[in-house]
Amino acid sequence: MKNKIPALFLLLALLISSPANAQTFGAQTATLANGMEIIVIPNHRAPVVTHMVWYKVGAADELPGSSGMAHYFEHLMFKGTKTIAPGAFSQTVRALGGNDNAFTGRDFTAYFQSIAKQHLPKLMEMEADRMVNLAVPPAHFISEKNVVLEERRQRTENDPRNLFTEQMRSALFVNHPYSRPVIGWMSEIKIYEWDDVKKFYDTWYAPNNAYLVISGDVTLEEVLPLAEKYYGALTPKDLPSRIRPEVPPANGRAHMNLYHASIKQPSFQRLYIMPSAAMNEKDALTLQVLEEAMSGGSTTRLYQSLVVNQKKATGISMSYDGSALDYASLWISATPALGVSLEELESLIDVEIAKAVQNGLSETEVQDAIQRLQDAAVYARDSVAGPAMIFGRAVTTGSTVENVENWTDNIAAITTEEVSKAAQTYLNPETPWLRPPVTGYLLPEEKPVQEAEE
Amino acid sequence: MKNKIPALFLLLALLISSPANAQTFGAQTATLANGMEIIVIPNHRAPVVTHMVWYKVGAADELPGSSGMAHYFEHLMFKGTKTIAPGAFSQTVRALGGNDNAFTGRDFTAYFQSIAKQHLPKLMEMEADRMVNLAVPPAHFISEKNVVLEERRQRTENDPRNLFTEQMRSALFVNHPYSRPVIGWMSEIKIYEWDDVKKFYDTWYAPNNAYLVISGDVTLEEVLPLAEKYYGALTPKDLPSRIRPEVPPANGRAHMNLYHASIKQPSFQRLYIMPSAAMNEKDALTLQVLEEAMSGGSTTRLYQSLVVNQKKATGISMSYDGSALDYASLWISATPALGVSLEELESLIDVEIAKAVQNGLSETEVQDAIQRLQDAAVYARDSVAGPAMIFGRAVTTGSTVENVENWTDNIAAITTEEVSKAAQTYLNPETPWLRPPVTGYLLPEEKPVQEAEE
Repeated sequence: MKNKIPALFLLLALLISSPANAQTFGAQTATLANGMEIIVIPNHRAPVVTHMVWYKVGAADELPGSSGMAHYFEHLMFKGTKTIAPGAFSQTVRALGGNDNAFTGRDFTAYFQSIAKQHLPKLMEMEADRMVNLAVPPAHFISEKNVVLEERRQRTENDPRNLFTEQMRSALFVNHPYSRPVIGWMSEIKIYEWDDVKKFYDTWYAPNNAYLVISGDVTLEEVLPLAEKYYGALTPKDLPSRIRPEVPPANGRAHMNLYHASIKQPSFQRLYIMPSAAMNEKDALTLQVLEEAMSGGSTTRLYQSLVVNQKKATGISMSYDGSALDYASLWISATPALGVSLEELESLIDVEIAKAVQNGLSETEVQDAIQRLQDAAVYARDSVAGPAMIFGRAVTTGSTVENVENWTDNIAAITTEEVSKAAQTYLNPETPWLRPPVTGYLLPEEKPVQEAEE
Repeated sequence: MKNKIPALFLLLALLISSPANAQTFGAQTATLANGMEIIVIPNHRAPVVTHMVWYKVGAADELPGSSGMAHYFEHLMFKGTKTIAPGAFSQTVRALGGNDNAFTGRDFTAYFQSIAKQHLPKLMEMEADRMVNLAVPPAHFISEKNVVLEERRQRTENDPRNLFTEQMRSALFVNHPYSRPVIGWMSEIKIYEWDDVKKFYDTWYAPNNAYLVISGDVTLEEVLPLAEKYYGALTPKDLPSRIRPEVPPANGRAHMNLYHASIKQPSFQRLYIMPSAAMNEKDALTLQVLEEAMSGGSTTRLYQSLVVNQKKATGISMSYDGSALDYASLWISATPALGVSLEELESLIDVEIAKAVQNGLSETEVQDAIQRLQDAAVYARDSVAGPAMIFGRAVTTGSTVENVENWTDNIAAITTEEVSKAAQTYLNPETPWLRPPVTGYLLPEEKPVQEAEE
């Protein structure tokens, strides 16, 4: 391959985008001839890098009946290739003083290592190798399935909060793969075989379905020849389209109760379906500001009203995450003060929401929220791994490098009127967006049904 | 084809099953060489027949994102073949003094005609023709889509009861195609194209994926040469397996409220997931008896307690349908008496259920229920079309001809202990089977959320 590099390198250099104005992160981008996209976020404070490969495939791309396969497959990626023994990938990273891991989302699967910059070529060599040469010995295939089943037992079956989240999601994201847990349903994890998993790998793992994202003490100029050498040699594939049905509109209001022995303190949960940044970038930004204005710390209205003034809750939070190829969600969680029922707490939360819907938010609330969000972006810029995470997540959920770079400016441009309008559009219980939220009460175990009287 | 008939006929005659003992319907069965199965239920009271073709494909076999295709396709089957003009199929049936129609379920699609027996060959000729020669003109493809969309508007969007049923099902049958409405989601009906529909037809419509079920004034001996002539000439296909994921267990109790302007009278609904006859034949029979014992008319305990004695409801019913390839369901519906809240009604229904779970049912209740069920079977036998419906539905949902024939004997064998045990197993709210039921309140429109106070 060496003879080919200079010519390709010249071609690739033309694809490098050089943003004209100052950006938050100063990310540099390029695309290899085989379609693999590269994002480099230079940060020269220390001679270290975070190297990530993000695949545009996640739990929402699994076939019906094969839930959890993307995550299980992520585990298998550590179990050996034609030339690297099971476990040797991570051992090598650790021997070089680095650390590595991976994670699976609904829309992406990501692998990452943080290490001293001189070891970048070795990481790329190994990461490119497992993109195409995976060869898991059957014994590991079986034992890793038990690892995943145990992971599900511990994190979900034995954790009522996660169990309830899973069940509330399944009631909200009707007809859509986001209704499935990323780790998969127990009965389905058990049944898929190596052939199914291999097909998943053969279908989705390809350079043209991946982003290489590197942050730290490098520049695109340094990265590009290495990327071309290791990843550029891989053959692209014909990729299938990602099948994502629509969530049908509904008007039935859903409420769920989960009674569980290990719950000591009841809690209130509410899950709304919301537009994602991929669906509506402007509204997603506005919802970020709305969330921050209503519940970004102890000075904001939800905490002030329910915890400080009325003393009806010991905690309350609202959280919107717009990073999704399809639908996003907004959670409200609250813990009642001693002696306060969840019904009472819910009605008081509904009053706060009605106020926001009817009266909007104040200029001060919105401007303070924007300031806090911008401050957080400054902190994010200083980390080595953080920016790689931010860019990888954005581009694999339908957003762009430009949107990330311009995020602080775009957030600053959101007006109080827009935030108030978003409250009206997305939080009004009389006119829910797409479908009403699912409300959940997580409760200590008890006998909720009256005994027979005879 | 004529020369081939005698030899094939001989072969086929060997496949005819002749039940040794007296059966309820006296059904006769055979299988054509191409895999098409035949059930004939003779009834010689009048010189008429009901001719049905049942395909082993339904709404639950649709691909994600293509809900409603089985039903839409059923409409298109009336829109012409290579030799029969759009609409001419039904016109021909009517011109011969008969009537025809079709229906789509989750596990099957069925086409039927009732007509004087001498016209059976013509029906078979036309039905066999559209099994393989469908050729729908594009204009009809488009106009029929509007017919289906309008059907959904009228029957679902504008009918809060059906809308609520749809939404309760989607909350119960998590991760399973039974969560989808047979007619499909509006947004998905709109998008499939002729190529998708043609692929559905090419995949599933084949003689080896169909049952021919004929009831009325014929015998298998008369039917077989005709069936061989018309259907036996068709080529079988390689059929895909039917992908049916499992419903994952859950313990969160779901409650839904639907407020709707056209609801004048509130109602209580509860939907349980239950084993089907295909899953557990014995338990399905027992659940039929349990349902009949608890709510089979005005003398049974639910009606007596809630309507007659306590006067808290004006109506109450329990209904179990075990005909499903996968999961079955049990509904409880009730209408409160004037001034009774749905909360109060629900707690009283829960008391009745708790009594059945804890104390079981009485010998008299169970024996009376069995008698009523057996009486109903006798009536069913006398109808012409009824038996064809019963057999077609049974065999396309995983049951057998033998089970239908022996149904009255099998029902008679159910004991009071078994019925009481079924109440404990399937209705106990403390230990739900697989997952708790979804409870629904259908309510007149109102503002359920408190207004802001300022």
